[in-house]
Amino acid sequence: MGDGADEIFKEFREHSVSEFFKKNRQMLGYSSRVRALTTIVHEYVSNSLDALEEASILPAILVRLDRIDETRYKVRVADNGPGIPKAFIGKALATVLAGTKFHRNMQQRGQQGIGAAGCTLFAQATTGKPVHVISSTGSKAYECDVAIDTLHNKPVISNAADLDPKAAQRGLSIDGEFSSVKYDNSDHSVHEYLKRTALANPHVEITLIDPEGKEQTFVRSVETMPERPKVAKLHPLGLSVSDLFEMAHASQNNKVTSFFVETFARFSQERANELKAQLAEIDFSKSPKELTWDESEKLIAAFKAMKWIAPDASNIIPIGEERITAALQSILAPDSLHVIERKPKVFSGGFPFIVEAAIAYGGNSGKKVDGGRTGVIMRFANRVPLLFDSGSCAVTEAAKSIDWKRYGVDIESQPVSIFVNVSSVYVPYSGVGKESIAQEEEIIDEIKLALMDAARGVQRFIGNRERARESEGKYKTIARYTGQLSKDLASITGKDTDEIEGRLEKLVAKHYNKEEEKAGKA
Amino acid sequence: MGDGADEIFKEFREHSVSEFFKKNRQMLGYSSRVRALTTIVHEYVSNSLDALEEASILPAILVRLDRIDETRYKVRVADNGPGIPKAFIGKALATVLAGTKFHRNMQQRGQQGIGAAGCTLFAQATTGKPVHVISSTGSKAYECDVAIDTLHNKPVISNAADLDPKAAQRGLSIDGEFSSVKYDNSDHSVHEYLKRTALANPHVEITLIDPEGKEQTFVRSVETMPERPKVAKLHPLGLSVSDLFEMAHASQNNKVTSFFVETFARFSQERANELKAQLAEIDFSKSPKELTWDESEKLIAAFKAMKWIAPDASNIIPIGEERITAALQSILAPDSLHVIERKPKVFSGGFPFIVEAAIAYGGNSGKKVDGGRTGVIMRFANRVPLLFDSGSCAVTEAAKSIDWKRYGVDIESQPVSIFVNVSSVYVPYSGVGKESIAQEEEIIDEIKLALMDAARGVQRFIGNRERARESEGKYKTIARYTGQLSKDLASITGKDTDEIEGRLEKLVAKHYNKEEEKAGKA
Repeated sequence: MGDGADEIFKEFREHSVSEFFKKNRQMLGYSSRVRALTTIVHEYVSNSLDALEEASILPAILVRLDRIDETRYKVRVADNGPGIPKAFIGKALATVLAGTKFHRNMQQRGQQGIGAAGCTLFAQATTGKPVHVISSTGSKAYECDVAIDTLHNKPVISNAADLDPKAAQRGLSIDGEFSSVKYDNSDHSVHEYLKRTALANPHVEITLIDPEGKEQTFVRSVETMPERPKVAKLHPLGLSVSDLFEMAHASQNNKVTSFFVETFARFSQERANELKAQLAEIDFSKSPKELTWDESEKLIAAFKAMKWIAPDASNIIPIGEERITAALQSILAPDSLHVIERKPKVFSGGFPFIVEAAIAYGGNSGKKVDGGRTGVIMRFANRVPLLFDSGSCAVTEAAKSIDWKRYGVDIESQPVSIFVNVSSVYVPYSGVGKESIAQEEEIIDEIKLALMDAARGVQRFIGNRERARESEGKYKTIARYTGQLSKDLASITGKDTDEIEGRLEKLVAKHYNKEEEKAGKA
Repeated sequence: MGDGADEIFKEFREHSVSEFFKKNRQMLGYSSRVRALTTIVHEYVSNSLDALEEASILPAILVRLDRIDETRYKVRVADNGPGIPKAFIGKALATVLAGTKFHRNMQQRGQQGIGAAGCTLFAQATTGKPVHVISSTGSKAYECDVAIDTLHNKPVISNAADLDPKAAQRGLSIDGEFSSVKYDNSDHSVHEYLKRTALANPHVEITLIDPEGKEQTFVRSVETMPERPKVAKLHPLGLSVSDLFEMAHASQNNKVTSFFVETFARFSQERANELKAQLAEIDFSKSPKELTWDESEKLIAAFKAMKWIAPDASNIIPIGEERITAALQSILAPDSLHVIERKPKVFSGGFPFIVEAAIAYGGNSGKKVDGGRTGVIMRFANRVPLLFDSGSCAVTEAAKSIDWKRYGVDIESQPVSIFVNVSSVYVPYSGVGKESIAQEEEIIDEIKLALMDAARGVQRFIGNRERARESEGKYKTIARYTGQLSKDLASITGKDTDEIEGRLEKLVAKHYNKEEEKAGKA
């Protein structure tokens, strides 16, 4: 009798991560047609913005959509960025899990090295076509077609040609043809995505040419680059045993002590000495490569028992109150706007984050529905709009838990835009598609506090406006009598009717009108 | 001036899928501590059951949990299966995306080749320890420690030794040590997972030794193996252009026609001739390897326009009414049980699936809460219990949409167990963690119909029981008078009191009691 196991294991195969995501592309956001198209634009635009900011260039991005048939579109995303060097084009666009971001502890839009390769995979799976790339780094320019060898997760380059760098605009331009996609005017469309991108990135100029050929540009409302985040050192409280163990074994330091002090945030020589005193069994002068797992466990336990200065949040760059104000004023022109920037906080012990929130009321706030406008919640993580999976997101959870009626706000029936941006070196997403922020308690709490603060501003505005309306009503009532009163006073006093009427009107207006105007702009 | 791009791309790296899932392990189900422990057991038990069924062995599985400290546990899962051949142990347990299942179009619990390697990854990341494996294939036995080289997604084997196959029990035994895990008695615990596994797999014997040392065995309620599903041919309506194109190019057939007829379900020579007549521009006698993408697109469009016999559902093996009844009777001992097996249906055009549903009422149905029992929904996909992410699942959606009050059922306050199993070669999961079934309309509809049918059964039972209770009340009222009535009748007729009383009692009992008993068992 042969072994059953041998028979079964004849079928044993290894698969590449490309094959996996090709088969399970709904996990990357390629599920419904509208979502798939927005996902493509999102991936390319996020990569462009990360590259442009890293190269300190004010971004100007073109997104062009051409409809071929009902579910088939051409997509072009072109930027004025640093381009991709020839040697990296294939890997950057056609190797899943390759890139410049995954391993860097730095606040960026991308984190995983899946996005652009996912687009190439999706083009290939739905139309069988590679994507076409033109890249100019300034001194060199190049074009080619890029596909993925999914069996090996390797790029396949074809139709490659060098270009004259003087003729080509500096930057990256990608053209792809996709099927199983659709453009519409919903809340989940490319248009909404780009509008929100402009809102959270007022230094960016984005032009959309939609499938009808209509061109719309979201202009810059700020002409300076945001501050650049630095690569952050990990905080001792944000480390797992395996982080510490692996970093120690990869370290170039000679001694455990210097490894600690040079590698981690808030780690002074004094802290190292304290640890030494506590953990006499560990030799702090040996090479960090000799640190055992057990020692790492003891060290992590000791870290958790010590008091630490909170992590340095200077590695996190929020959008900033001024920029949010400029962007929301320029795009929504609200009657009332309240922007709150919270102080840096920490989640899971060692990961700093910053919450910004704004509530815009009136004007073009909210969204159009039959017979008026209704409220809308706009979620962002590191300035990237999150349009999908709102149900599982910390922002939605925080917004739902607020008793809006207390603030006189009714999201269902009023023109309100609620804006929340969470900035962090490590945003905890709940899925590969990165469309919702995991419901960490500390993050939800911060969002709630920020929203309640902004809501109080709206409450004041609404209160003042109501008082102003009442006042306006009284003013009109009284004003109706000034004519007759002036005549009566004139006949009693013998003075000029017009003069008396003029004075009376001023008096009444001063009492009601001026106060109202001040209150209305508060 | 140097190119900015060169500077940025100095940071370019490629990452392995192991690194990716190590960093994003919440995507595999390693999020909360309780869920992480259940995920480990789920992955090992699912693999064991797939292997045992493939080898046609009645499964007996041992799960043993030892608590080391509050969040650190040893886990052993041992089966009586075919084992893993020596050459495959490393890859099967320590290479993400490797296995016997991913590429086979066949109904199985596992689909992806991530599970067991994910466990190894999690052990390593939380305790720094490899997993220990003993495998006996019957003729050969072997043990070793297995870890993952995450940088390369390759296994690292240590402490390997050949064993005497006569001394070792045939099967696979895995021991791992994990931290960031926790055992409790919640609905999401290992205990509940195994109980539900037993419910959906009545041919399986599972023994759990919990961290308190308490041993509990879920015994078999059926002594025969379920039918084996076959490898299914794809149905022409379930193909995408890229499926067709890639299968054609990988085909060993000489001609397009024979490729079609031999590869796909329901594809007769007549169908091929019809296509030929329609698509004169395609050469059906050329090699399938020469089929172009454009031709594939035309073919898929033609497939969609033709009428096809629905896919053969004989490749899908549901649990079966008898087995579900046996399992639920044995584990829940309900007062009333209604099991529904629906006919095979198709979702997304070409994927057949079968829905089975049952409602158990009374006895140990539902779950204990303070002061009584409440209802519970048990979701299964290919017999695997789904304990998490219920909010996004098609089963929950279907159950929520039913107006239970119409059937006299109140899930909040009655002891009801709702059981739903969806069987398919391709279950559309909504995430890598495979804990919820995507909300495909056809699947939701089938679940609803099955549940409504079962609910009608419960409704009849509840109605009958109420009538029976009323009847019992009347009987008791009348019975109270038989003593006095007998005496009165005796004094009037001069007959014996006891005899009259005896007759009266029989009469009353016959009228009420017998009918009631029949009704109660319906």
